[in-house]
Amino acid sequence: MAQKPWGGRFAGETGKSVEDFTTSLSFDKRLYRQDIAGSVAHARMLGRQGIIAPAEAEEIVRGLEEIAAEIEAGEFPFDPGQEDIHMAVESRLIAKVGEVGGKLHTARSRNDQVALDLRLYLAAEAEALIAALTELRRAGVRLARRHLNLILPGYTHLQRAQPILLAHHLLAYDEMWRRDLRRLTEAEARIQVSPLGAAALAGTSFPIDPQFTADQLGFPEIFRNSLDAVSDRDFILEFLSHASIIMIHLSRLSEELILWASSEFGFVALPDAYATGSSIMPQKKNPDVPELIRGKSGRVAGHLMGLLMTVKGLPLAYNRDLQEDKEPLFDTVDTVKAAVTLMTGLLTELQVRPERMAAALKGGFLTATDMADYLVTRGVPFRTAHAQVGRTVRYAESRGRELWELSLAEIQEFAPLAQEELSGWLTIEHAVSRRRSPGGTAPERVAEALARAEAELGINPYEQEI
Amino acid sequence: MAQKPWGGRFAGETGKSVEDFTTSLSFDKRLYRQDIAGSVAHARMLGRQGIIAPAEAEEIVRGLEEIAAEIEAGEFPFDPGQEDIHMAVESRLIAKVGEVGGKLHTARSRNDQVALDLRLYLAAEAEALIAALTELRRAGVRLARRHLNLILPGYTHLQRAQPILLAHHLLAYDEMWRRDLRRLTEAEARIQVSPLGAAALAGTSFPIDPQFTADQLGFPEIFRNSLDAVSDRDFILEFLSHASIIMIHLSRLSEELILWASSEFGFVALPDAYATGSSIMPQKKNPDVPELIRGKSGRVAGHLMGLLMTVKGLPLAYNRDLQEDKEPLFDTVDTVKAAVTLMTGLLTELQVRPERMAAALKGGFLTATDMADYLVTRGVPFRTAHAQVGRTVRYAESRGRELWELSLAEIQEFAPLAQEELSGWLTIEHAVSRRRSPGGTAPERVAEALARAEAELGINPYEQEI
Amino acid sequence: MAQKPWGGRFAGETGKSVEDFTTSLSFDKRLYRQDIAGSVAHARMLGRQGIIAPAEAEEIVRGLEEIAAEIEAGEFPFDPGQEDIHMAVESRLIAKVGEVGGKLHTARSRNDQVALDLRLYLAAEAEALIAALTELRRAGVRLARRHLNLILPGYTHLQRAQPILLAHHLLAYDEMWRRDLRRLTEAEARIQVSPLGAAALAGTSFPIDPQFTADQLGFPEIFRNSLDAVSDRDFILEFLSHASIIMIHLSRLSEELILWASSEFGFVALPDAYATGSSIMPQKKNPDVPELIRGKSGRVAGHLMGLLMTVKGLPLAYNRDLQEDKEPLFDTVDTVKAAVTLMTGLLTELQVRPERMAAALKGGFLTATDMADYLVTRGVPFRTAHAQVGRTVRYAESRGRELWELSLAEIQEFAPLAQEELSGWLTIEHAVSRRRSPGGTAPERVAEALARAEAELGINPYEQEI
Amino acid sequence: MAQKPWGGRFAGETGKSVEDFTTSLSFDKRLYRQDIAGSVAHARMLGRQGIIAPAEAEEIVRGLEEIAAEIEAGEFPFDPGQEDIHMAVESRLIAKVGEVGGKLHTARSRNDQVALDLRLYLAAEAEALIAALTELRRAGVRLARRHLNLILPGYTHLQRAQPILLAHHLLAYDEMWRRDLRRLTEAEARIQVSPLGAAALAGTSFPIDPQFTADQLGFPEIFRNSLDAVSDRDFILEFLSHASIIMIHLSRLSEELILWASSEFGFVALPDAYATGSSIMPQKKNPDVPELIRGKSGRVAGHLMGLLMTVKGLPLAYNRDLQEDKEPLFDTVDTVKAAVTLMTGLLTELQVRPERMAAALKGGFLTATDMADYLVTRGVPFRTAHAQVGRTVRYAESRGRELWELSLAEIQEFAPLAQEELSGWLTIEHAVSRRRSPGGTAPERVAEALARAEAELGINPYEQEI
Repeated sequence: MAQKPWGGRFAGETGKSVEDFTTSLSFDKRLYRQDIAGSVAHARMLGRQGIIAPAEAEEIVRGLEEIAAEIEAGEFPFDPGQEDIHMAVESRLIAKVGEVGGKLHTARSRNDQVALDLRLYLAAEAEALIAALTELRRAGVRLARRHLNLILPGYTHLQRAQPILLAHHLLAYDEMWRRDLRRLTEAEARIQVSPLGAAALAGTSFPIDPQFTADQLGFPEIFRNSLDAVSDRDFILEFLSHASIIMIHLSRLSEELILWASSEFGFVALPDAYATGSSIMPQKKNPDVPELIRGKSGRVAGHLMGLLMTVKGLPLAYNRDLQEDKEPLFDTVDTVKAAVTLMTGLLTELQVRPERMAAALKGGFLTATDMADYLVTRGVPFRTAHAQVGRTVRYAESRGRELWELSLAEIQEFAPLAQEELSGWLTIEHAVSRRRSPGGTAPERVAEALARAEAELGINPYEQEI
Repeated sequence: MAQKPWGGRFAGETGKSVEDFTTSLSFDKRLYRQDIAGSVAHARMLGRQGIIAPAEAEEIVRGLEEIAAEIEAGEFPFDPGQEDIHMAVESRLIAKVGEVGGKLHTARSRNDQVALDLRLYLAAEAEALIAALTELRRAGVRLARRHLNLILPGYTHLQRAQPILLAHHLLAYDEMWRRDLRRLTEAEARIQVSPLGAAALAGTSFPIDPQFTADQLGFPEIFRNSLDAVSDRDFILEFLSHASIIMIHLSRLSEELILWASSEFGFVALPDAYATGSSIMPQKKNPDVPELIRGKSGRVAGHLMGLLMTVKGLPLAYNRDLQEDKEPLFDTVDTVKAAVTLMTGLLTELQVRPERMAAALKGGFLTATDMADYLVTRGVPFRTAHAQVGRTVRYAESRGRELWELSLAEIQEFAPLAQEELSGWLTIEHAVSRRRSPGGTAPERVAEALARAEAELGINPYEQEI
Repeated sequence: MAQKPWGGRFAGETGKSVEDFTTSLSFDKRLYRQDIAGSVAHARMLGRQGIIAPAEAEEIVRGLEEIAAEIEAGEFPFDPGQEDIHMAVESRLIAKVGEVGGKLHTARSRNDQVALDLRLYLAAEAEALIAALTELRRAGVRLARRHLNLILPGYTHLQRAQPILLAHHLLAYDEMWRRDLRRLTEAEARIQVSPLGAAALAGTSFPIDPQFTADQLGFPEIFRNSLDAVSDRDFILEFLSHASIIMIHLSRLSEELILWASSEFGFVALPDAYATGSSIMPQKKNPDVPELIRGKSGRVAGHLMGLLMTVKGLPLAYNRDLQEDKEPLFDTVDTVKAAVTLMTGLLTELQVRPERMAAALKGGFLTATDMADYLVTRGVPFRTAHAQVGRTVRYAESRGRELWELSLAEIQEFAPLAQEELSGWLTIEHAVSRRRSPGGTAPERVAEALARAEAELGINPYEQEI
Repeated sequence: MAQKPWGGRFAGETGKSVEDFTTSLSFDKRLYRQDIAGSVAHARMLGRQGIIAPAEAEEIVRGLEEIAAEIEAGEFPFDPGQEDIHMAVESRLIAKVGEVGGKLHTARSRNDQVALDLRLYLAAEAEALIAALTELRRAGVRLARRHLNLILPGYTHLQRAQPILLAHHLLAYDEMWRRDLRRLTEAEARIQVSPLGAAALAGTSFPIDPQFTADQLGFPEIFRNSLDAVSDRDFILEFLSHASIIMIHLSRLSEELILWASSEFGFVALPDAYATGSSIMPQKKNPDVPELIRGKSGRVAGHLMGLLMTVKGLPLAYNRDLQEDKEPLFDTVDTVKAAVTLMTGLLTELQVRPERMAAALKGGFLTATDMADYLVTRGVPFRTAHAQVGRTVRYAESRGRELWELSLAEIQEFAPLAQEELSGWLTIEHAVSRRRSPGGTAPERVAEALARAEAELGINPYEQEI
């Protein structure tokens, strides 16, 4: 059992099971880089402000750098009895440099220290996630470019609705990912705020310079209120919210990939590297990666929910409940980064099966809306046209025929104003090319949208033809 | 049972219980204003683009305006058999203006229509919430101004920690609300995007002008991808996330008000108007309003969670599951607005009890950190000073005395470097005034922070003295 | 603004917005039947115990019965200024029978009263849900009986895996519903506990007889601890948990129905009464009912989550936060009952399409496991057999052939021990009938399982042949 | 990269990042005991049924037992490239005993294997939790016995309400824990169901005996439907629900302990072993253990939510999403067991401070209800009496006096029927002893309740006096 740095006031000892329950070292040691960087900046500031002697500051910094090296090299003597990474580093520091190490914690509390570590960690991870999402956008856009004019059925309610371009479908996800990126970028302004200097909750009587430490650590802003600085976990809640929405987007795409990889749809084949087999059924090729991504959306939303519940109703300022912020955050970061990266690889290697998409364009009366639109151009109010087409579809379905296989006379039974020219509205290709309203699926619109996305992403559309 | 506008294709009739289950009219009629505004803009666009005759457009607009008036006057014949507000309005329109009313739905689908209605609704409500939160900030800031130099114990772990100013405590919430406002403002850019023109999922073959309708409705942007436009509910998820964090903030403040209003703390008295009594215990005055606000944080987070789960794994584009977006959104808007408004009133009328706060400054060894800080100025490393003070506190506690009631000799038993001047560090007032680091609780710092907040909020600090 | 029954202690008045925020009348008036039943039982007990005069008790009961009749008839003067149904009934009672009405609340508090009302409500609703779930089981079992020997592909990972009977598939849901029923039945023991007599939190000094009121109300048990009685909401949390699992089951079946109703699967056609059309696409027939059921699983889980969060961290005994229990409970009851009932109707009228199921049995190498099992009977270790079949499948797939279309010579390339008899293992029918292990899909096993379920449900299997 | 046992069908290789993403070995190796026990039972069954030779079965069992010993000894060569514990064990088995090891997986799939492992694991853990909760009940009951007649204020809305016995308060939690135990016990019947023999999803053609394996493993029941057996995770969802409610109970008690340990309440002192200090404030003694327990309620509820979301909408039968069941389950088991155990220790060592409780009985007008009850015995309707007492309280409060400090004349101003005897109703002790209704707080009632609980728990009430 490690000697507690706050033990002076206590008569009894912490029990072993209590120690196990309260320690965060097993998971917060992951923050060692941030913790040491923060301590280095803090020590330099203390020296610069004359709160400790400059030579002392240098000695502390040197000790901290050695500790960082020890941890990197796997040579740091972690003692499971220590409460957390902060105390593990500090007690090692004192062991290395002697009593002067005890000066590091001047004008600082674990309350502002841990908040700083988390913010440094998340700032870097948010950047990494932004980069990963950008790669995902690139993979989607490149896939769209490879299949620019490929048509498949668009669905609503999982019923075939209207023909669309595969590229148009993929660009719908590009919009989601643009929003995800935008949200993350905006959230960064709230992550990159240095809380160091708030001390326990009320600030400190030492003449500190919080702006200096923030500058050292690359944070553009410092906290405005010390109580808020140590008790605020908004930046984590907000990140978990954005991460949950990212996972929702990926779960929707995963669902589609799973559907599309089924025998029934057959629109795509997953690369072998992204599927696994069965321990018992030798013929199986299972879409494990999209299934796991879809499943992990629950995990991330669960973390969000858990932390909302943890923070609910806590009085100011710091409460130990807040220690429960770390594991859900770490797991969310790991999960979302992996999911985004795997999806990037999957889209990059996805095999599209145009013949199955083409086959699916038949039999769903996908151009029924076009027939109604045609009737509108003939002066029929849309609502009336809709009803006429509905009856025509029922007739065609009952005979197992396509709309374009009906004779004009048959059609006129239901839609008296229809003329021969209607036949020119009923084919799939015409239907697609006619939807040239802004944001629509006509090839010219999609080509524009794709070019715009490529420009945003710095992609040369010709790269792939080389 | 109302005639269904899409009934042409169907042989059987919708069952009554199915109708009850699937209808959204009971809750989406709340969107009538948005629905009609959207239809008016759409009809004008249709006329302007020559898709319908300008005179027809005018007839439709006139009909729609009459319908709006009917609904406002409570004279609209709502038929529970109708599926939703969109169909209720359209069928009423046809009843009023005849078959031309059937032209309104040209180049539009319920899929883009309902997305538009929700966005118009939420854009207005987000504005209203921003205004309400700004009022809440004002109430908090004014309360802080009224008690600028009032000291109470600051707590961590609900244990008395260090003395702080009440104004400093209140300004911690001001920081939270600033972030809430910032998040909402940023979210508005994603709400104010017109989806009209996406039609069912793929755009339309009519020569529509979506930018025109967006302009008419005051939206700066239009959708970029039609599939995304009809299936995106990010803007609701994001709002629910921000709303959940707002409720977390309010739940924390509510918890504090409940604590402070207890006999044990006694720091505040709630105005009678914000409390209720007991049906059986005549002496009770219960903090019902903060209790309900705290309790409602679960309600809002539950809505967020529910909608995340609803959207999870849905393939593109529109699925009927998405109808489940409305009730949680409406209830969240109502709940958060009411909670913010009630908290504003509560802070405005809160009675602060300085004598109870003063009493609580004793007995918690609130200046122990200051003693340690003093020892640091005497050259004792902080970690050593901490241990010395810890033992001093244990000694004082065992004798039922305050730190400032110990003799220097007694103190020197534990802290040999302590000198007479230490006594100047141990009083509450000195402790507060010495924490003048940026963002700290010293009166001069808090006065600056308060002035900054007042400037942001356009408050004249002298207003209340008149 | 209604006069508050607890107003004696208060100087100020409750504000209007506070009243709106705190009132529960708009939703708890739904409990009027339970509230009056509880009050009648309480009044009779008071009279019987001599706490009030028997004649007074009779007068009160008569007044309460009149009030019940007024509410049933829609003639009760609800005043929105009243706090809740309890106060609305009591003040009406006093208005009707005079000051003696004020004796009803003797030895009772709203705290135990509202807990009783909720328990009476939920006890009845749990019974209703048990009945509805039993009907759902019946509908599933009848559907299975109608298609007893119909084969379709069984799926894992949404990939065709092995052939199974449709009846076997349906009976998997029967198992889920059996568990749901079991859980609800067990939960009833914790719902049917009368809290009346706990009073505010500590019991009462009047010589009450809580067992008598419990008997009157049909509850087998009374509370054991008064503090627990007024602050316990376990019975609601537990019900919401069970309801969430029920919705998960229904969401899984809904997902399958949506898949099966797609053009790609085509295994079923939804009855017209359970589908709706599109406002724009005349050919659409959308599976709205299963989509909404699937979507509503989020709603119910959200309510569970919300209430867990609301109750978290509340000290004993009653806190006003608990008022937030009612709306999620009511909405959950309504939602789950409707979902179960609609699913019952849907299964009853579902049109199965055997030809599409038969078509899907080809092309998925569904008997690959059987080939491996055959090889095991020839002495090949399973793991080796699995590998041999895997290579055989790859070979067949690359040539576009079924396993049963390969010659023995071709097969022996990969599985040297295969003999002519293997062909008898590769057909779909053989594969199904050979899985006759307990709980397996062989027709004889499924027939037994079906007969067992029918027996449990009191169904005569021949009923449908008449 | 490990050779995949299902690799026969695959041309490409699994990528490294895919492997990392899909492997469950890092967390499911925790199931090795269950996995090996299940395999041993399965191998014995295969031998007994003649599916493999008895000697082969023995060889396999011997190999498995060696593997178990290797893992226990930390000598098992875990290869991170392996997919899961099942494959790790099987491939090690083959390495040890040769090709016969490949026969173990005959008539089995990972789908039923993993379901079995989870059920074996949870059955044991549910038992362990039941034992831990029983110990917690014992700790609570013993604490109640130690302070049998100690009075403190009972609270509603965190306002002092009526005086109660501390033992009565503690027994309220005993009721919660009794329900928790009941729920867990009932859930066990649904956990202890062997799924082995369901194979992939449809059963098997081998003549297996699932009842034999179930008997070997101590499970009273086997599955009834093979599809359900491999896709059912109800038993986990149900456990997570019950665990969430357990955590809610502990979070409520933790909140109370945190309040009671504050300077303001001061009703208890936490043992030093269950508290920690501050890194900066030497005087602090923080209630970290109850804070963490309270905080962890979010964690567990988040796991429940996450898994509900993961399972939502999955078609039958097994989907890889279900792999996400393990981590939340494992973490919930660990968290709840630790929280229950720590709370047991905390209650055992809790120091109660009667003098602070006694002090808190003043000043809250805790006997106001008793005055009203007295007036009722004088014939005043309760509602009228309530109002009279309310006004009396307002009068007393404005003068800073207790009810019992008012003269009869003063009281009669508000309550004309009050007589001298009233003074006998207003003291705290009388108020407590008079609440002798069933389940009430009178000492005789509490003594009975305590004796009943002790009898249920097999506690000798005199044990502690020795």
